[in-house]
Amino acid sequence: MGNAAETLYDRLDPDATDPADLAEHLERHDRLGRGCAALPDARHGLERGTVVVDGETVVRGYPSVPRALVLDPTVAEHFDAGRVAVEEKLNGFNVRIVDPGDGDPLAFTRSGYLCPYTTDRARTLLDLGAFFAGHPDAMVCAELIGPETPYTTHDYEGVDSHAFRVFDVRDRATGEPLPVDRRRERCASYGLPQPRLFGEWEPESVPGHVREAIEELDERGREGVVMKSPDGTTMLKYTTEAHHHAELAYAAGTPFERGRDFLFSRVMREAFQAYEFDEDGGRLRERARDLGESLLLPFVETIREVAADEGVGDEHVARGDPEHVGALLDHLRSFGVELDVLADEREGDERVVRFRKVAESTRDRTRHYLDGGTYDE
Amino acid sequence: MGNAAETLYDRLDPDATDPADLAEHLERHDRLGRGCAALPDARHGLERGTVVVDGETVVRGYPSVPRALVLDPTVAEHFDAGRVAVEEKLNGFNVRIVDPGDGDPLAFTRSGYLCPYTTDRARTLLDLGAFFAGHPDAMVCAELIGPETPYTTHDYEGVDSHAFRVFDVRDRATGEPLPVDRRRERCASYGLPQPRLFGEWEPESVPGHVREAIEELDERGREGVVMKSPDGTTMLKYTTEAHHHAELAYAAGTPFERGRDFLFSRVMREAFQAYEFDEDGGRLRERARDLGESLLLPFVETIREVAADEGVGDEHVARGDPEHVGALLDHLRSFGVELDVLADEREGDERVVRFRKVAESTRDRTRHYLDGGTYDE
Repeated sequence: MGNAAETLYDRLDPDATDPADLAEHLERHDRLGRGCAALPDARHGLERGTVVVDGETVVRGYPSVPRALVLDPTVAEHFDAGRVAVEEKLNGFNVRIVDPGDGDPLAFTRSGYLCPYTTDRARTLLDLGAFFAGHPDAMVCAELIGPETPYTTHDYEGVDSHAFRVFDVRDRATGEPLPVDRRRERCASYGLPQPRLFGEWEPESVPGHVREAIEELDERGREGVVMKSPDGTTMLKYTTEAHHHAELAYAAGTPFERGRDFLFSRVMREAFQAYEFDEDGGRLRERARDLGESLLLPFVETIREVAADEGVGDEHVARGDPEHVGALLDHLRSFGVELDVLADEREGDERVVRFRKVAESTRDRTRHYLDGGTYDE
Repeated sequence: MGNAAETLYDRLDPDATDPADLAEHLERHDRLGRGCAALPDARHGLERGTVVVDGETVVRGYPSVPRALVLDPTVAEHFDAGRVAVEEKLNGFNVRIVDPGDGDPLAFTRSGYLCPYTTDRARTLLDLGAFFAGHPDAMVCAELIGPETPYTTHDYEGVDSHAFRVFDVRDRATGEPLPVDRRRERCASYGLPQPRLFGEWEPESVPGHVREAIEELDERGREGVVMKSPDGTTMLKYTTEAHHHAELAYAAGTPFERGRDFLFSRVMREAFQAYEFDEDGGRLRERARDLGESLLLPFVETIREVAADEGVGDEHVARGDPEHVGALLDHLRSFGVELDVLADEREGDERVVRFRKVAESTRDRTRHYLDGGTYDE
């Protein structure tokens, strides 16, 4: 553990002037008998969520993906000549999976925490043994999706509980991605499930193709797409109207937890997409009304729930090995999340816990105003 | 000028430990041959916008008025026994007018700036000579309303250009208000126009009466009410749905100027009002749709204007004495406001300037995204 910062400093970071500075910013935690030191913010050229396991194994964070607000001309400005691959972006929980060398793969959250539950799910649902035997330094970047996950709850047809989709494979120490075509072939050859590839086109024709893809995804209530250069290094994301409205409803349901930036940024995405997709303004009013309903209805519903002393917060289901489901609940509580366990049952070998992450700020502030507290501007 | 801080310290502030601390926080400006030192934030028990004129005359800031998010039980919690007066709250520009002793009244903005234009308008439109002769230490707190003002543009029936409404009279040095009934009598006796008084009731019956008033004001597109204890010291405000939607439209028209808190706080007011006023949810969907239209339509319109290289920003009209209208434009530019003069005409003795306050952040950031800039989260 003590040399995590030096490990990072020695192997990776030409800009760092001092390992002590890195050491100071690493947050340490122990899970599954492993000592982890994670970087909570991007620093010295290292991505947020970069983590060192047992002082030796570096696991780079997943880079932040920039967003296009309008497709034309952003795609052409963002990508050089060549082609652009368009893949589906899934609404789930972004994890990185590595094998430090002992055949026991570990799964890390976006912010660099070793998650025992996701680790168990990855070991159970993905055939990782053969993959890491052939590619020991790889980092498998996957989205945990489906209605039964402790982090997100988006439905996908064909996913009754939860599943992984591998959207990237990188070198765990350098963060360098595999080219898109090699990555897709490799995942296919090991049977790792992947998000859909819509196609590869010249940058000039990408906006039209993405627009078609987005309209289809929008009808099915899905999130959006990620565009990638063939070498996998340049990325750009773009999302559907349905996703923007779902995000607003999500934020409005626990308004005092999500922050104001969350609200503003979703309204902004909607406005730029409406501008680009709806040149004659024919659908603009309908879109505006849907947006208003997404914002106000869940907010009022939450006030009613607080007034009736019902619980407020997002409901989740964790399903899996009893020990690891227990570890998950401990893991969430260790971050200060208050949990209401709504159901705790056995189905065969599995423990299935339905729980609410209590939205404490929303509950307490809404209660304060309903009890006659004033808002002082 | 040099003794502005000591003047404040000596006369007013029992908590200040050091006049140097006050001096450090005073912002100095000269207007109309007067040296002013204003406090940009509340400090040491002094309100934001407290100003010292020529080192001698203290003009207290107008206190921040807390807001009710629900009327019941907030009114009963906020006011002690006794009665509560309910007056209309007007959507205009809040100014304080004092006479430092030479018969030349001066008008100060909420943040404590001496505004030459508003001063000229106050001297022209209000009969202040007799008032200050009888009450030399008074501070007249008034709203500048109407479609032709350099600060706000809300229409009021019967106000073709602009007018004042006096909503409070206080001691300029202590900030102590006149009781509501004495203030209304005094203003009436000097012919100073006032906002409407809806009535005075026991706290328990105020929510019902305010709700009636709010529903009437809402239909006419007006802002709301201020509730006051009879002595004028305890205040509480509450606003209409029409006002919330107008504010959202205003913010959405120049989205990168207004800030995220602005958006969130207006949605919050709507949600609590919808919860309280619409118990059966019959009007909730209509309210939500109106809210969505208020947000998205002006935002998309602004993007279209930037795309077409048209100007973006709020349009205003300044009408009055040519010299003072010129001083107003200089005053605004001195705060870094970029102005587009759209028309500059004479009508009789008056100069009438129609101008746009250019929304530079909205123009530049919208242009950046339309040119293909990405949004990095």
